Amino acid sequence: MSGAPDEFALIAELFAPLSASYPGALGLTDDAALMDVPPGRQLVLTMDSMVAGVHFFADDPPDLIARKLIRVNLSDLSAKGAQPFAIMLSAAFPHATQADWLRRFAHGLAEDCRAFTVALIGGDTVSTPGPLTLTLTAFGHVGPGQALLRSGAVAGDQIWLSGTLGDAALGLIARQGGLPHLSMPHRDHLIARYLLPEPRVAIGPGLIGVAHAGMDVSDGLIQDVGHMARQSGLAAEIRVDLLPLSAPARAALAADNSRLATILGGGDDYELLFTAPPSQADVVHRLAARAGIALTVIGGMGAGQGVRVVDRDGNAVAVAHEGWRHFTDTGEEPWSG
Amino acid sequence: MSGAPDEFALIAELFAPLSASYPGALGLTDDAALMDVPPGRQLVLTMDSMVAGVHFFADDPPDLIARKLIRVNLSDLSAKGAQPFAIMLSAAFPHATQADWLRRFAHGLAEDCRAFTVALIGGDTVSTPGPLTLTLTAFGHVGPGQALLRSGAVAGDQIWLSGTLGDAALGLIARQGGLPHLSMPHRDHLIARYLLPEPRVAIGPGLIGVAHAGMDVSDGLIQDVGHMARQSGLAAEIRVDLLPLSAPARAALAADNSRLATILGGGDDYELLFTAPPSQADVVHRLAARAGIALTVIGGMGAGQGVRVVDRDGNAVAVAHEGWRHFTDTGEEPWSG
Repeated sequence: MSGAPDEFALIAELFAPLSASYPGALGLTDDAALMDVPPGRQLVLTMDSMVAGVHFFADDPPDLIARKLIRVNLSDLSAKGAQPFAIMLSAAFPHATQADWLRRFAHGLAEDCRAFTVALIGGDTVSTPGPLTLTLTAFGHVGPGQALLRSGAVAGDQIWLSGTLGDAALGLIARQGGLPHLSMPHRDHLIARYLLPEPRVAIGPGLIGVAHAGMDVSDGLIQDVGHMARQSGLAAEIRVDLLPLSAPARAALAADNSRLATILGGGDDYELLFTAPPSQADVVHRLAARAGIALTVIGGMGAGQGVRVVDRDGNAVAVAHEGWRHFTDTGEEPWSG
Repeated sequence: MSGAPDEFALIAELFAPLSASYPGALGLTDDAALMDVPPGRQLVLTMDSMVAGVHFFADDPPDLIARKLIRVNLSDLSAKGAQPFAIMLSAAFPHATQADWLRRFAHGLAEDCRAFTVALIGGDTVSTPGPLTLTLTAFGHVGPGQALLRSGAVAGDQIWLSGTLGDAALGLIARQGGLPHLSMPHRDHLIARYLLPEPRVAIGPGLIGVAHAGMDVSDGLIQDVGHMARQSGLAAEIRVDLLPLSAPARAALAADNSRLATILGGGDDYELLFTAPPSQADVVHRLAARAGIALTVIGGMGAGQGVRVVDRDGNAVAVAHEGWRHFTDTGEEPWSG
């Protein structure tokens, strides 16, 4: 890569303050970072990439791109019950990236590093002839052996979901000019949910010792429940009538019933999906109340395999498969029934 | 991202075996990985990205691209004196990536995971409309507080370099059709050094307690010595006559003396650069002999600032500044005198 020394000096200047709280970051002046894991804790690591034109729009506000990148990764950590504390960022910036854009991007990073008490401890900056490509590695910690895995679900567990479902997928449609019948406040709400997910960090660590299995909804509910069912060697049943929907999502569904496929299959929700035995329901409800975040039972795990979507009477609901292939994905088919 | 489910299933199938030795990788079936740091050790972390058309050619052999990615990162860990043990990989593959290409890429990953005893413990796979973009986070460990930093050099230290200098930069020129006067074996040697660096993992950990400061040469010797001098608050002097050059590099220099700028300023060598007090010279020589890797004194650190390139009589040598801006780079000007 040639040229652009000013850009790289600017990045160093903008990013270094985000490392100030973490001595092992060495002020981002070395090739590596040093990390002491808190005594008696186990590290939990996740790594997610986002590409302009695939996972966000190149003209999205730069601070929101940065914050979404952090939040997508913190959502993964929270779903494991981990307490996040550090991130590393590798950014491939297009040649034409402007100083003002970089400042706004760094401002977004700083805002969420502060909001979630994570330090930027290292990373890399390169130039690309292609689209903006961002990769974050995020670090959290849990008690040894206590992380909530996809594979931990037990037959008889209830399936829980945080917040509301489908807003981000509907927001993407609204962002692209769809859902014209919705009110402006409803459209704005959905678009905001697409642009800036809310990682449920106030919930995740509280699920340790309560939930059996955990993950976040990033690829779409049906697909993600399918991952959990398969890794746990069980079947899952989702009750359509129990799904927590926002008022804008209910309005979208009322106007066009086929949006159910978007809600069940769309991605980017970054809500927590976990299973817990019914005996823990009171504990989960208290956790929800304390955090001020809705936690809703949406179905249950049982013997068998696959994901079955049913109505309140237990009758199978036909849902068109709306593919959503962000992020790591085995490409396996989680649908059944 | 739409389509290509087979591709993602193939990647899962190809990558999962590389995680087999590491239980915390959870078989790459979860959103996160778990890590127990060896008792009494400190983690050392590094993260480097490579973009097709910037850091390698899109038509380079896929196994060599994968191996270079691993080696570039292990070189950073080794320069800190760390023992590597794990990697996470995020890959943005172009839409048109073929199954055969992926197989060869995974084969290269597997080969170097085996060669360097590192496990692939997690990561991400996404699709991109742009060039192949690869990011690795690599994990090593050292005794607490023992890592070799850029900032640790002491006035009076000798500056040491592993292997030979400038081969990769000359190899890049040869790869692009330059250096036509060189013999085929010489050209092949240089190109191989560009395509596949040799991380000095047999040296790095042995430098703990011996060297004061360490880093690898990735941005070019002058620039990297400049980083070390600046972070240590010292000046560095490089003796041109002491630089370890391969026979092909000597031939290139004999044919065109201006290639000295390429050798001093070119990047991608991934040789170790470290400083140690003269009293440790015997220890360093024994380490070199045991590892079968040349370690050469190329200059020294003293009071002041900047990098001075001199001949054997101490006279300043004028070297044209040949910029090389791969990887993280503050954009500061390390040249002086």
